[in-house]
Amino acid sequence: MELNLSEKHTSILEAAVAAIDARTFFAQYPENPLPEVYGENADKEGREKYKTHLNKQFTELLQQDPEAWVGQEDSPYEQQPLGIKYPYFATETLVSRAEEAFHQWRKVKPADRAALLIESLEQIKHRFFEIAYATMHTTGQAYMMSFQASGPHAADRALEAIASGYQEQTRYPEAITWEKPMGKYNLKLDKTWKAVPKGVALVIGCATFPTWNTVPGMYASLITGNPVIIKPHPKAVLPIAIVVAEVQKVLQANGLNPNICQLAVDADDHLITKELAENPKVKLIDYTGGTEFGNYVESLKGKTVFTEKTGVNSIILDSVEDLDKVAQNLAFSVNLYSGQMCTAPQNFFIPASGVKVAGETVPYEEVVKKIADAVTALANNPKAGPHILGAIQNPATIERVKESASIKGTTLLNSGDFSNPVFANARTCTPVIYEVDASEKESYSRELFGPIMLMIKTQDTDQSIALAQEMALNYGAISCGAYTTDPETKEKIMDEMSLAATPVSFNLTGGIYVNQNASFSDFHVTGGNPAGNASFTNPEFVIKRFTWVGFREPAMA
Amino acid sequence: MELNLSEKHTSILEAAVAAIDARTFFAQYPENPLPEVYGENADKEGREKYKTHLNKQFTELLQQDPEAWVGQEDSPYEQQPLGIKYPYFATETLVSRAEEAFHQWRKVKPADRAALLIESLEQIKHRFFEIAYATMHTTGQAYMMSFQASGPHAADRALEAIASGYQEQTRYPEAITWEKPMGKYNLKLDKTWKAVPKGVALVIGCATFPTWNTVPGMYASLITGNPVIIKPHPKAVLPIAIVVAEVQKVLQANGLNPNICQLAVDADDHLITKELAENPKVKLIDYTGGTEFGNYVESLKGKTVFTEKTGVNSIILDSVEDLDKVAQNLAFSVNLYSGQMCTAPQNFFIPASGVKVAGETVPYEEVVKKIADAVTALANNPKAGPHILGAIQNPATIERVKESASIKGTTLLNSGDFSNPVFANARTCTPVIYEVDASEKESYSRELFGPIMLMIKTQDTDQSIALAQEMALNYGAISCGAYTTDPETKEKIMDEMSLAATPVSFNLTGGIYVNQNASFSDFHVTGGNPAGNASFTNPEFVIKRFTWVGFREPAMA
Repeated sequence: MELNLSEKHTSILEAAVAAIDARTFFAQYPENPLPEVYGENADKEGREKYKTHLNKQFTELLQQDPEAWVGQEDSPYEQQPLGIKYPYFATETLVSRAEEAFHQWRKVKPADRAALLIESLEQIKHRFFEIAYATMHTTGQAYMMSFQASGPHAADRALEAIASGYQEQTRYPEAITWEKPMGKYNLKLDKTWKAVPKGVALVIGCATFPTWNTVPGMYASLITGNPVIIKPHPKAVLPIAIVVAEVQKVLQANGLNPNICQLAVDADDHLITKELAENPKVKLIDYTGGTEFGNYVESLKGKTVFTEKTGVNSIILDSVEDLDKVAQNLAFSVNLYSGQMCTAPQNFFIPASGVKVAGETVPYEEVVKKIADAVTALANNPKAGPHILGAIQNPATIERVKESASIKGTTLLNSGDFSNPVFANARTCTPVIYEVDASEKESYSRELFGPIMLMIKTQDTDQSIALAQEMALNYGAISCGAYTTDPETKEKIMDEMSLAATPVSFNLTGGIYVNQNASFSDFHVTGGNPAGNASFTNPEFVIKRFTWVGFREPAMA
Repeated sequence: MELNLSEKHTSILEAAVAAIDARTFFAQYPENPLPEVYGENADKEGREKYKTHLNKQFTELLQQDPEAWVGQEDSPYEQQPLGIKYPYFATETLVSRAEEAFHQWRKVKPADRAALLIESLEQIKHRFFEIAYATMHTTGQAYMMSFQASGPHAADRALEAIASGYQEQTRYPEAITWEKPMGKYNLKLDKTWKAVPKGVALVIGCATFPTWNTVPGMYASLITGNPVIIKPHPKAVLPIAIVVAEVQKVLQANGLNPNICQLAVDADDHLITKELAENPKVKLIDYTGGTEFGNYVESLKGKTVFTEKTGVNSIILDSVEDLDKVAQNLAFSVNLYSGQMCTAPQNFFIPASGVKVAGETVPYEEVVKKIADAVTALANNPKAGPHILGAIQNPATIERVKESASIKGTTLLNSGDFSNPVFANARTCTPVIYEVDASEKESYSRELFGPIMLMIKTQDTDQSIALAQEMALNYGAISCGAYTTDPETKEKIMDEMSLAATPVSFNLTGGIYVNQNASFSDFHVTGGNPAGNASFTNPEFVIKRFTWVGFREPAMA
């Protein structure tokens, strides 16, 4: 390992560990793509670098002897193939290389692993803009989200995993002398402990957040000494390929086997995820994606699994101070990345008797109309809409938005499309809103991924809470927004939603949204409901990746 | 809650938390049954109190309206029924009472739960001798082990679980203000977090260590806010029934529902464990016992499970300083409670070329003979043997010891019996020793519970290590003893056994044994091999019993 790498990054590591404990605001990587922070030409250079990848082989990886060159990415903005080809390796090759690398990596001390991994983030930082454009043209995210989610926010989540893993592996003394008084003499034992990594790790990425949802598990497995195989979604490879390449370069520069972190891209004619996941040498799996495949991953024997599947997220509207501000906040949450977020709200529970606004009851119809108007106004604002909604990653999402047959209710707002000022061919749509009665449970008991809002008319707030809890317990939930000015109702919502393991954001207005969560402070998918157990980053996220093993011996006199 | 209870026990809690972090020697409950510590008449009174339970209904529990009175315990020392009858409740009754109690218990703060649970240990302490006699006459343990394992050692493991659970639930601030600089203004959110308990917990006890193996899971679930149902082995109820009764009294005295901790005894005509385990309301299960049932428990969906199943524990003999001392140490480990311990050694790997003793090679045959002689001498010593071997809990163990057909090897030492100076009818046997060639893997690839030793002749120490690792990886291991004076060999053993997640005790002689482990310092069954994942008490043992849920709201200006 390069001299001074460990010392160089001590202050970052210590600040991150302190932030995890304090849970107050902390960010190592500034989220604002300012020239003053990232350099005058960083954006332009990033865009150009992104373009150099198109229609070429991606040759930055240090994995030797590919069997083929593969790739099937398309840009949701241009609706054209990116034409990038990545090296392809058979599952056996990937796993046996990981196994070999394991025996080197597991012997590197946690502090040194932390330094190496932080160094990789510092290198990746120089490529945030390039990664941002790669994210735009694979996921359809708008520019700002692409930059923030795939760049600084992902790097901060990675740093969080590094710091948490370092903290948990070093929480006990490496060696002590244990001295037991026996009356006439003391029994003395020298004791040591090792945090033993579990083995080969696999991270299965998703198409919408190719780095943000991948790097936490990737870095958590790495910091705890496990070699990792990154299997991105075949439609969103480039952003994470750049990340993996940077990790490999840091490993090699420090005399380590770059196969400690490998990229595994699907073949053009077959997907390799099941082969990898079922390989008995693979001991750890992180997965982000749909429920069906997630349940399959969770059912595999002999693996430690972390999942982020789908959720049915609720908004509970009881009473508010300023309905316009609430409507605007919710409109933003629904429009953001066209609802293609695991944290986006879907089910809006509103009492039939209406919502109290600063003490006066506003009828249900008016509340619903206000929200629908706010959604429309934002989506159709040519200066704001395209930068918030972005494009639609998967054509199936458009179909889901346009198709309403499976929902028993009234259409309050039809989905339209809008033009993107830069990309004439962008795949877009504006949100659709349905009104559904609380009795029509089948219509709202599943995730409708994309910009689909259901206004669910309930008897009262108690029913709203009960239904939000039921949805979370039975179908999973990753976020919940609640609006109430009544302390007792707030207490009840906290209590009932806590039993469904669902975090609640109360009374959000202004510049913070239910679908956003902050590294080092907000936990993400901590388990306890069917949405998964990804657990970014509470201690479970790292400690399940290694086993404590103790050694003892009589102490020398 | 009683005034001052929390304050009263703060120092115990703080000392226990500090001990967990330091891992140096700590014991809250003295292991020596000295009159100076426990009172002049404590032993005599305890024995008498034990006798008052015989042939009566156990009426101390605060669980109302039993459906029947049941009991099927026998004393391995007297080979007679104890005749104690316990209240019986249907599974539905137990689970619905636990659910009801849950909503009270989960709202008690972790610090208050800790105080209440420590108070229960302080009360149980006054009954250590009574519990000791109850343990003798259910498990067959000798007096000293009965006292230590079921009394102070169990209480210390319980305290360890309480302290660890308290520590993990309070490691983050309860509430903070999160302030994010946005350039011209700061975004401010008030945030709080709750450690939300998972729900009804079940602890399934074993017949040999009815309190030691039960209280860690029981107290770990309780400290994290889960109501618990204790299902003891039908042959070893009384020791834990006393413990549960004391917990219930403390709960009731402090205005809480005693059903927060219930005892569930099998009916005389059917076992209720599967009914309980499969109940969908049961979310957490701790299990100690055989592999087959343990695998069944682990296969249940939607449960968080902690198991301690069986292990195939190895001794690796390479080189020693003093063979006599080593033989005596190993003889004690094998004779202790007649090998009826999950940590007892079974497979002794010895190179065919012999063992280096202070630099000189001692032939294999001589090594084996020395160990066999030491085993015999200790077992047949009328002043020591009965106090170490105790009695045999299960008649099937005697059959296993006498039956050698399934082992392909030579009998080096036949099992005999010995008379107990106090109990003429005690069920006893001395250890049996077989010699098996390393090639006869089938003979040593399973746990042979009881005083059964296999001397396995290997090509060399490398093969010994490889086989010990293979046994641990494939069939589980909870302990490993290794003897080597060579630093490189020691390093290799540490490395290879760490990959099989097996703790190793090196070069033990004198008063410490491979089958003993110490609360607050030695981890026990941390996972990573098929012996289980009980994880006394690394953080996993407590944090998997609750879910972190966060709440946030714009901060008031």
